[in-house]
Amino acid sequence: MTIMGTRRGVLGGIGAGLITGVAGLPAWAQGKRKLGYAIVGLGNYATNQILPRIAGCEFAELKALVSGTPAKLEKFGAQYGVPRTHWYDYKSYDRIKDNPDIDLVYVVLPNSLHAEYSIRASQAGKHVLCEKPMAVSSAECEAMIAAARKANRKLMIGYRCHFEPYNLRAVELVKTGFVGRPTLITAEHGFYAQPNQWRLDRPMSGGGSMMDIGIYSLNAARYLAGEEPVAVSAMEFTDRSDPRFRNVEDRIDWQMRFPSGVIANCVSSYSSGHNAFRVTGTKGWVGMEPATSYAGHQMWARTSGKTEQVMLPPPAKNQFVAQLDHLAESVLSGIPLRASGEEGLRDMRLIEAIYRSAREGRAIQLA
Amino acid sequence: MTIMGTRRGVLGGIGAGLITGVAGLPAWAQGKRKLGYAIVGLGNYATNQILPRIAGCEFAELKALVSGTPAKLEKFGAQYGVPRTHWYDYKSYDRIKDNPDIDLVYVVLPNSLHAEYSIRASQAGKHVLCEKPMAVSSAECEAMIAAARKANRKLMIGYRCHFEPYNLRAVELVKTGFVGRPTLITAEHGFYAQPNQWRLDRPMSGGGSMMDIGIYSLNAARYLAGEEPVAVSAMEFTDRSDPRFRNVEDRIDWQMRFPSGVIANCVSSYSSGHNAFRVTGTKGWVGMEPATSYAGHQMWARTSGKTEQVMLPPPAKNQFVAQLDHLAESVLSGIPLRASGEEGLRDMRLIEAIYRSAREGRAIQLA
Repeated sequence: MTIMGTRRGVLGGIGAGLITGVAGLPAWAQGKRKLGYAIVGLGNYATNQILPRIAGCEFAELKALVSGTPAKLEKFGAQYGVPRTHWYDYKSYDRIKDNPDIDLVYVVLPNSLHAEYSIRASQAGKHVLCEKPMAVSSAECEAMIAAARKANRKLMIGYRCHFEPYNLRAVELVKTGFVGRPTLITAEHGFYAQPNQWRLDRPMSGGGSMMDIGIYSLNAARYLAGEEPVAVSAMEFTDRSDPRFRNVEDRIDWQMRFPSGVIANCVSSYSSGHNAFRVTGTKGWVGMEPATSYAGHQMWARTSGKTEQVMLPPPAKNQFVAQLDHLAESVLSGIPLRASGEEGLRDMRLIEAIYRSAREGRAIQLA
Repeated sequence: MTIMGTRRGVLGGIGAGLITGVAGLPAWAQGKRKLGYAIVGLGNYATNQILPRIAGCEFAELKALVSGTPAKLEKFGAQYGVPRTHWYDYKSYDRIKDNPDIDLVYVVLPNSLHAEYSIRASQAGKHVLCEKPMAVSSAECEAMIAAARKANRKLMIGYRCHFEPYNLRAVELVKTGFVGRPTLITAEHGFYAQPNQWRLDRPMSGGGSMMDIGIYSLNAARYLAGEEPVAVSAMEFTDRSDPRFRNVEDRIDWQMRFPSGVIANCVSSYSSGHNAFRVTGTKGWVGMEPATSYAGHQMWARTSGKTEQVMLPPPAKNQFVAQLDHLAESVLSGIPLRASGEEGLRDMRLIEAIYRSAREGRAIQLA
C-alpha cells in the first residue's frame, strides 16, 4: 500500500503505515501514523465494497478482521495481509481493547447488532464507524451516543453519500439558489429483495425496506432540504401472502413537510427498482438517477427552460475511500464529523415516525 | 372546411357540413351531417386551443359562440365565419334550445360556472362537453349528471389526455405487463401561477392548484393504475403572505393506495414547474416528461436494465381534435363516452378527500 496512491498514482512503497511528511498532506497529518481499522462482519458489503478500498485511504489502513466464520478470517486475512493475531470472533471481540494497532472499528453487521457491537467498541476505547441504519430503535441510538461520549471516542454513521461528489454538488446547487426557492423533493429508492436474506428477518433487520434502502430516500430528502422536517405522513403496502414479507414491510412511501415549505415525496420499496431524487424549485430543478449508487451517478439540471447533464471530474477519492478516511481525519485533526451518531439518531426517530404514521393513518407532527 | 382534411390532406370543398359517403368513414357516419358545436366562454384556452382546431374534426364543426364580451363575438365570429344569428351572451344563452344547428355545447368557463352552464345546456336539449375540473363540488357534479340524464343527452368531461397517443400507449404498456406488477406511480404537475387571474380567486376557481393543474396528476394516477384508490393522504403548503394565495392553496401533494397495492405519489403546485409521470413495477418502468402537455410529449421505458425512448408516429388526429370529435362520434354512433360525467365526479370526490386529508392531517379511507 502506498500513500497518496489513489490521489496521484502509485508512488512506490514510501512510508507505508506512516503518514510521513509528503508534500500536500495537511499539517495535522505530518509525521503521524495511519490509523488502523478493524472491520466487524465479513458479509457481502464488507468484503466486496469495503475491504478492497481501504488501501486507497490516506489516513487509515486495515489492521484487524472480526467474523464468526473462521474460513472468512483465513481467506480475507490472507488476501489483505492481516495476521492471525489480529483476527477476532464475536466472543474474543472485546479483546480489541488490548490491540493498539486498532484505532477505528467499522461495524458492518446486520442492523440489530449495530448497537451492541458499536457500544462494545466504544467501551474498548475505539472510535466507531457504524453502517446505517444506525440501529433498530432510537433508544439504541441514544445508548450508542452515550457510550461513545462516555469513552470520549468518536461515533460516525456510514452515510456514504455525504462523501459522494454528485450528491455534494446537488446540495450545493440547491443551497446556492440554482432551483430558486425549493418546493418539492422527490427521493425514490428500492430494489427487488431476493428471498431468504437477513434483511427480510425482522429480528436481524429491525424492519423491511424502510430499514434498508429507504433510508437513502429519507437522508437524501434531509440533506437536499438542508433543514429538518416538521411533519411526516406515510402509507404502506405489503403483500403478506408473499413469503418474503412474513414479518417486514415491502413498500412504504411518505411525505415530509419542512419549515421552509418544501415537501418531500419519498419512496422505499423491496419490490421495484428506484434510485433517484430531484429537487424542484421556483426556477428549475436538479436531479440524479442513479442518485446514491456505488458508481455511475448521473445528474441533470434544468433552468430557464433548458435541461443539461452535469458532469463532474473524477474525484480524488471515491465515496467509499473518502468515508473511511473521514473518521481517521476527524480523529487526527479534530475536525467535526460530517455524519455523526446524532445524524443517525435523527433518521431513526423519523423512521419511527414514518412507521407510526402508516400504522395510525395520520400525519405525525414532529417536535 | 373539408371532410377528412386532417387525416388525408385537403380534398377540396366536398360535402362541407355533411358527412357524405366518403370511403373510410364508418358506416354510422355515412350520409349524416356533422354536429354543430357552441363554444361557451372565449378565454385563452377556448380561443387559442379549441377554436382553431374544430376545423380538423370529421364529425363536428363550429356553429355558435357564447361570450359576455361583444368584441370577442365580433372578432371570433368574423374569424371563424359564425354569423351574428349564432352569437349568444349569458342572458340569451338558453335560446340555444331554439337553434337546431347547435347539437353540442363545449363549456370552457371558470370552474365555478361549469355546473350552471352545463345544466342549462342539458335543459336546452344539447349534448355537453365540459372542461375539467367538472365543477367545484361533487354535489354540483351529481346535479350535472342528473340534468343530462333527465334530458337524455350526453355529458362528457374534457379529459384531453384520454385522447393523446403517448398517454394511451403508457396505459397500454402498463396494462400489458411491460413494467411487471406495478408498485409505484408518480404524477407531478405544476406551474408558476401569475397573479391576478380568475384561477387564484376561489369564488371563480373553487380552489387552488388542486382544482387546476393538480387534476392532471390525479386523473393520470387513476388511468395509469387502471383501478380506483382505496385510501388517500395529503399534505399542503401555502405561503399565505404571498398575495397570490389569499384564498386558494399553492401546493398540495398526496398519496393514494389502490386495491392491487400500487401507491401513487402525486404533486400539484402553483409555485414550480412539473409535468411528468412514471409507473414503476417489478420489471421496469414507463414514464413521460412532459406527460400531459399540449404537444412535445416525451416517453421513456425501462426494462431488463435498459432505458429507451419511445417514439410514436404522428396521430391521425391530435388530442384536441380527437376529443372534440369523440362527443360527436358518441352521439352519432352510440359508442360509450371515454370521459363521462361519472369520470369527472370520481375525480371531484377524490379532490374533496384530498382537501379533507390535508385539513384533518389523516388518511381518508374511500368507500
